[in-house]
Amino acid sequence: MKENFFSLRTVMWEEGRAGKGRVKMIDQTLLPGRFAYRSYDRWEDVADAIRRLVVRGAPAIGVAAAMGIAVAAVNSKAAGRDRFLLELGAAAYGLRATRPTAVNLFWGTDRVMEVAARSKDVKEAKQAIVKEVIQMAEEDVAANKRLGKFGADLIEDGDTILTHCNAGALATVGYGTALGVVRAASEQGKCVKMMVPETRPALQGSRLTAFELERDGFSCKIIADTAVGFMMQSGKIDKVVVGADRVTKDGFVFNKIGTYQIAVLAQRHSIPFHPAAPASSFDLERTHDQVTIEERPADEVVNIRGRRIAPTGVPVANPAFDMTPPELVTSIVSDRGVIQSPVRYNIDSVIR
Amino acid sequence: MKENFFSLRTVMWEEGRAGKGRVKMIDQTLLPGRFAYRSYDRWEDVADAIRRLVVRGAPAIGVAAAMGIAVAAVNSKAAGRDRFLLELGAAAYGLRATRPTAVNLFWGTDRVMEVAARSKDVKEAKQAIVKEVIQMAEEDVAANKRLGKFGADLIEDGDTILTHCNAGALATVGYGTALGVVRAASEQGKCVKMMVPETRPALQGSRLTAFELERDGFSCKIIADTAVGFMMQSGKIDKVVVGADRVTKDGFVFNKIGTYQIAVLAQRHSIPFHPAAPASSFDLERTHDQVTIEERPADEVVNIRGRRIAPTGVPVANPAFDMTPPELVTSIVSDRGVIQSPVRYNIDSVIR
Repeated sequence: MKENFFSLRTVMWEEGRAGKGRVKMIDQTLLPGRFAYRSYDRWEDVADAIRRLVVRGAPAIGVAAAMGIAVAAVNSKAAGRDRFLLELGAAAYGLRATRPTAVNLFWGTDRVMEVAARSKDVKEAKQAIVKEVIQMAEEDVAANKRLGKFGADLIEDGDTILTHCNAGALATVGYGTALGVVRAASEQGKCVKMMVPETRPALQGSRLTAFELERDGFSCKIIADTAVGFMMQSGKIDKVVVGADRVTKDGFVFNKIGTYQIAVLAQRHSIPFHPAAPASSFDLERTHDQVTIEERPADEVVNIRGRRIAPTGVPVANPAFDMTPPELVTSIVSDRGVIQSPVRYNIDSVIR
Repeated sequence: MKENFFSLRTVMWEEGRAGKGRVKMIDQTLLPGRFAYRSYDRWEDVADAIRRLVVRGAPAIGVAAAMGIAVAAVNSKAAGRDRFLLELGAAAYGLRATRPTAVNLFWGTDRVMEVAARSKDVKEAKQAIVKEVIQMAEEDVAANKRLGKFGADLIEDGDTILTHCNAGALATVGYGTALGVVRAASEQGKCVKMMVPETRPALQGSRLTAFELERDGFSCKIIADTAVGFMMQSGKIDKVVVGADRVTKDGFVFNKIGTYQIAVLAQRHSIPFHPAAPASSFDLERTHDQVTIEERPADEVVNIRGRRIAPTGVPVANPAFDMTPPELVTSIVSDRGVIQSPVRYNIDSVIR
């Protein structure tokens, strides 16, 4: 058993005076160089933080967006319930428009809006919403710990696990999904080594995952994204465990750009490929062709930490996510159990 | 027909007074921000330039290393032939120790050493060596133009071609191998669009290939290395054309790290995969298991243009090349013709 640096929380509710409150989160744009928190008391600023990747990771932005509505709620001066609900609707709309791919954003805002709709007056609504978002944060950590335990059973002592992007404590309220599996395996006494592709363009692998793993004392090696195939070819990877921004009802896994090609390589080398995602990342309403893949600014690719690395004027394509078809998935680890292959037929019985 | 900016040369011999001379090359570490030449009159500095990627690309470093021996030759104060050959031997040894994977480095130094060994005295040797390296540079451009024509026949009007790293004018003395194919197709009047992965860690795609293509007026789009699979999945790539640092006699293609995974993805999506390499990149002596893959400094991965992007102390693996097995290769374009699949059985008849 090891004590985790990341018992701290990535996103949290900060109680204010007289029922007011703020969303407090680790500013992930500063990592690994600087560790600092930011607090927001306007939903517009929370939306901006989500857009700029101050907070990222599907479960984390789900809770952050819910808390974004909560700050709109507690700061509302609306006297009547209708006016209050309109204000919350605007906040929800604005927060939902930040990033299209992770379904947790919609799940999180929906859940708070339902609480608001059920409340009989503004005062009760404000209290109920704050209670709900605090509970959502707690539930996220608990779900990740359950997920971690289910996933840990798939890990063997001595495994080298390749992950991608950051599906760790920093991508959730705490503990992590893919890295939750790794933490749980370690808590079971299994020795696990990690291989971390840097994950261009936003470098969540080298900036965030390496930071998080190193702080918690895990053995961890950074590679360029181009070296994944070579490492598999050299027999250096035993398993792949990644996160998921959305799993559709037909078993397609939407996750950080680059995940699909890792899955293709894993299949070629007969390496198990396990996405890990809590129930809130499953979209049981939609099939894969109904999901929008976010295109992010060109600047993320051609400017690295403020340094221009490409000639000016050359066009850039910067899709932020890709889609892994179910036939490349060995099993999906969720907080309700492991969804075995063929995943498209087994999601319903585990998640619904 | 378009006029090419890259009619200029990446590596050249600069005649000095009294039979002396220097190696002059574009400093590729400064691109795309600054375009500048460097001249070297000590072989040790040429070796250092090869090691630091001032000059890179298999055909370019083959000629650069040969010219490195030539500067050792013209500056030698050795009176006797034996002493002279010993000095050249030391230079050749030092230059060959810079980078292990591209076979052209050994081809280039061998060729000059044979000229030295055939000469009857120091004066004749110096003249013959200078003549030889100038001719090698000319031959490289001519070979690439022949290669380009053979390859252009594989390209259709309207194709979007994905390349990797830089196998262009900047990777050769001039014109390029993979990009030579693109130039030749364009000279035939075919409209070609290019997709360029940035090629981490050293960013030869976004820094060099995008620079070279943009200067020559080609349509070109930069993507992160993680987006290759997505682009293929989206039907946006018609062909893959890459360079090669070494093709072994059993048909394995050693090229920039990341090439192998592109080949695996191309096969999955039924996209033709064509390495392009002149005869000097073929190693008809060795099989794939006899090739050393260079491991480069960790700093290339965790420092980008002087900015640290990962926590200090986290280990890094940085293999510079990988190996694509022949079953993933559609055909290899050489200056002596196209080597059809199964390439391992057809190399000999085309190259030897």
